[in-house]
Amino acid sequence: MGTALLDRRDLDFLLFDWLGIEALFARPHYAEHSRDTVAAVLDLSERLAADAFLPALRASDRSEPALTADGVALAPEVTAAVRDYIDAGLLAGPFGQDVGGLQLPQLLHYASIGQFMAASLAVAAYPMLTIANARLLAAFGNAAQVEAFALPQIRGQALGTMCLSEPQAGSSLADIRTLALPDGEDALGARHRLHGNKMWISAGDHDITGDIVHLVLARTPGADGKPLPGIKGISLFVVPKHLPDGQANDIAVAGLNHKMGYRGTSNCLLNFGEGRHAPDGAGGAIGWRIGEPGEGLAQMFHMMNEARTGVGLGAAAAGCRGHLLSVEYARGRVQGRTAEGGTTRPAAIIEHADVKHMLLAQKAYAEGALALVLYAARLLDDQLSGDAGTAADAGRLLDLLTPVVKAWPSEYGLAANDLAIQIHGGYGYTRDYDVEQLYRDNRLNPIHEGTTGIQGLDLLGRKVLRDGGAGVAQLRARVEATVAASVADARLAPLARQLEATWQRLGAVVAELASAPAPQALEQATSFLRAFGHAVVGWLWLDMARLCAGDTAFHRGKRAAARWFFAHELPRAALWLDLAATRDDLIASTTQDCFHC
Amino acid sequence: MGTALLDRRDLDFLLFDWLGIEALFARPHYAEHSRDTVAAVLDLSERLAADAFLPALRASDRSEPALTADGVALAPEVTAAVRDYIDAGLLAGPFGQDVGGLQLPQLLHYASIGQFMAASLAVAAYPMLTIANARLLAAFGNAAQVEAFALPQIRGQALGTMCLSEPQAGSSLADIRTLALPDGEDALGARHRLHGNKMWISAGDHDITGDIVHLVLARTPGADGKPLPGIKGISLFVVPKHLPDGQANDIAVAGLNHKMGYRGTSNCLLNFGEGRHAPDGAGGAIGWRIGEPGEGLAQMFHMMNEARTGVGLGAAAAGCRGHLLSVEYARGRVQGRTAEGGTTRPAAIIEHADVKHMLLAQKAYAEGALALVLYAARLLDDQLSGDAGTAADAGRLLDLLTPVVKAWPSEYGLAANDLAIQIHGGYGYTRDYDVEQLYRDNRLNPIHEGTTGIQGLDLLGRKVLRDGGAGVAQLRARVEATVAASVADARLAPLARQLEATWQRLGAVVAELASAPAPQALEQATSFLRAFGHAVVGWLWLDMARLCAGDTAFHRGKRAAARWFFAHELPRAALWLDLAATRDDLIASTTQDCFHC
Repeated sequence: MGTALLDRRDLDFLLFDWLGIEALFARPHYAEHSRDTVAAVLDLSERLAADAFLPALRASDRSEPALTADGVALAPEVTAAVRDYIDAGLLAGPFGQDVGGLQLPQLLHYASIGQFMAASLAVAAYPMLTIANARLLAAFGNAAQVEAFALPQIRGQALGTMCLSEPQAGSSLADIRTLALPDGEDALGARHRLHGNKMWISAGDHDITGDIVHLVLARTPGADGKPLPGIKGISLFVVPKHLPDGQANDIAVAGLNHKMGYRGTSNCLLNFGEGRHAPDGAGGAIGWRIGEPGEGLAQMFHMMNEARTGVGLGAAAAGCRGHLLSVEYARGRVQGRTAEGGTTRPAAIIEHADVKHMLLAQKAYAEGALALVLYAARLLDDQLSGDAGTAADAGRLLDLLTPVVKAWPSEYGLAANDLAIQIHGGYGYTRDYDVEQLYRDNRLNPIHEGTTGIQGLDLLGRKVLRDGGAGVAQLRARVEATVAASVADARLAPLARQLEATWQRLGAVVAELASAPAPQALEQATSFLRAFGHAVVGWLWLDMARLCAGDTAFHRGKRAAARWFFAHELPRAALWLDLAATRDDLIASTTQDCFHC
Repeated sequence: MGTALLDRRDLDFLLFDWLGIEALFARPHYAEHSRDTVAAVLDLSERLAADAFLPALRASDRSEPALTADGVALAPEVTAAVRDYIDAGLLAGPFGQDVGGLQLPQLLHYASIGQFMAASLAVAAYPMLTIANARLLAAFGNAAQVEAFALPQIRGQALGTMCLSEPQAGSSLADIRTLALPDGEDALGARHRLHGNKMWISAGDHDITGDIVHLVLARTPGADGKPLPGIKGISLFVVPKHLPDGQANDIAVAGLNHKMGYRGTSNCLLNFGEGRHAPDGAGGAIGWRIGEPGEGLAQMFHMMNEARTGVGLGAAAAGCRGHLLSVEYARGRVQGRTAEGGTTRPAAIIEHADVKHMLLAQKAYAEGALALVLYAARLLDDQLSGDAGTAADAGRLLDLLTPVVKAWPSEYGLAANDLAIQIHGGYGYTRDYDVEQLYRDNRLNPIHEGTTGIQGLDLLGRKVLRDGGAGVAQLRARVEATVAASVADARLAPLARQLEATWQRLGAVVAELASAPAPQALEQATSFLRAFGHAVVGWLWLDMARLCAGDTAFHRGKRAAARWFFAHELPRAALWLDLAATRDDLIASTTQDCFHC
């Protein structure tokens, strides 16, 4: 009881029926894999997530990471779970054979790690970050850096982090102050000594592996010795916990954050170069620049985009597990009565209309979020393995969709977990039921790796308006294809027409915004993000429902969730689009003093 | 820093300018009070809430109630805070002089206890429950019961509980099984011996007072010795922790629930009559029936309705405190830049559009929720002190509004607290900031004393449809008066027209639903509740904005929040009304097997 993770029927539907994973195996890049690979990886993941990660869920919450004289100690269940993941060889899954990877389709990798996230977001964060870190190194590092820092992560000898935020610079990365002073060249490249404080570093220290590979954004000095200003002053450095000769680098854990949830992931304030652990007299944590100076932020976004997709997947996965737990609870909990014939009988709450609405909402949110993230993973595969045109198309779409892939699951996976508590009633508010923790764990997702507000600015400002709506037009062609394929089915035709109207309005609003003065166009960026997210997820639901024409329970469930989403949620897109198109003085006239002071 | 509770300017505005508390002092019932009483009570409450309750906030969370050999032990800060409340004489505030009370206006009492709730929901639950318990006894108990059980609570010698739920009967009170066996008559009335288990009993045991007064719903046996079935088989009993002779009654704390938040309120599984503490050989916890047999549920709703209003107030108060903390944080946190002239400068986040939206949303939610609850308190005063017609009108409106007064603040006070975390970013997700706990504490409110779903059924099934919409029509007359008084102000006229259109559609949907077959009409009861809640709160915002025509920051802030609510939230009412009027087969055709099994 309570051990269901992701619904395997749903994963098989998404991978095989909807996203056509088998088409990938016809491409040279994935030619070594087959339907059997998918089954084997999903079987392994399902089993290991249930056997190793799920038992660590509560332990990770109740025994928080602790700062000891030897560094950060995790609950033994957490350490053991990540080691099991490493031992199963799963870290190598998504990497190319050139770096010792299994070259699995990204779609399969995301479906696999999604099961671990469903079991414990906090534990799954360690492999998720490590894979993204090693991938950045593989993309931008020199051969020596790949050998020294990426391969050990792919093999599971070291785990990785991303060190961006500082106490004074969270959403505003242009304001980071950590300084990297040049210290000559060696076999690993341009050597630097780093000084500064990095905040909110997930997996910043732990006792899972002896070594940790930090990717650190820092500013370099200009010709006048002063830190170079702005974004172009920022470079990226690889800074290992231990130097190649085995000595400890000058990185100190200055403190741990105590969070509402997601507690199993240690979250550190790291001091670089404060001298407590200085390996020599010179001072500063030693690191090597990756790629060219001034490219730090652009390179870091390679990892950040992957982390954002990972956040979306985790939020979706936690939402899905909460849904399965809710279904199980609602089936077993008898409360109140239902009418039958001329009389009444005691009823499981799954029979009550309000509970059905909540379960349909959860299903629409959580399975919709999962579909969105896996759609993005499939685009990643097109980017990696498709012909030039396919790859370019996929890259543009992925670029447009990434803020939605991060934000929509974060908001609605969380909403699904909120409903899980509500369906469980008072029991769901107690720490005896996992839904209580799922909610707390998932609450981080709309915050980290860029808040929902930041995703809105990224979507509207960078992804939609900068190219004059060209990316949106490309996406809309795919929406039109789904609409065209759905109108013939009498059950889906009303949904298809509703979706078409939503996208017409969205197109019109994009055109309006493109001609508006920039600062005011962005005032309602979050409303635009919400509208766009609903328009995209509505499209995906119709596209899935199109393939669920049968009378099986699974098909009827998918169609019911799609109907629920179109009736209850999609109409909100029009309200948000009205807001996005609003030109008034409400924000400008709401001065600080309007709020209590 | 961080000690702001409710904004006193807002309370003064609500009590004096908007709800006309001074008009009450012209009535005989409240003739002993004046504007000075209001100032004295609010001053005292503000000070005591800040000095005693706020310091108990985190202690109540970190040192949970513990079960010891002597019963439940609370964190010392919690016990001390409630004792301070008692010592200040505040328990007597809302009671009539006939039972030793101060006969304060209910409006003033709610404004007073609201400040304690803003400081700590969990600590304020003890006085809130005690007042509601004693009020039920004063309304329905015989003279000896009032003397023995109500007066000690009004004096603070005992605290009170309400014992309704059982492990198998939460939302469905008709299914309770606790049995009360007649045991003769004595000076306190019809004596019974109770056997059964009561679940989720807030303040069910503690070490604040030596005695505790439980109000317990239980079933009595019929002539055949078997428990009487259905609601008419349920009576209400007063069951003290200690009997009049000082002996312990047969009530055992079988366990404590460990909650997500609201932890300072002990939450007990109480076993009545299991014999471990039996005061004599006969067995059973001794209690006395209140009023007539079979009236239990109706009487309990006297306390339940007050508890529901209390829940709404607490949810609003926590939302308000979260808003004030957010304003303070957003003013101080510098992040990113803002354009000024042709250049940019570092900006406090309160200057960013997305943060302004979140602050306006919080203000609209939290201050709107507070206004709603205090409007209900003012109706209570009309019921208690108005002439016959005024009292009857107020009673009908209060009856209609109670589910909204409970559910709307619970949903949107919580939403305001969720935004408080978001505004604080990563910091708000840590336990170093009170907003993290405010969210966890407030998450209980949409569950206890009747979930949001239950409030929807109560509103639509009992309050709206049973009288064919007469109550709604009476409320609508008040809405029309606000609309008529607002259209002349050019700034408010668009809002007035929007409100008018919303209520027209609401009236039409009520008429449609009144003619629909009953079970299907209730399928969308929650959507109806949401629409109705927004229509009511929109009305109150317009009614408040009408009185804020000036150019002060306070007035501009109120108008901005009203505008935000009408732009971002009120349009949703039309969507929910569409859903409420929907007749389709989605719910009927969504059978259990549509969900994972």
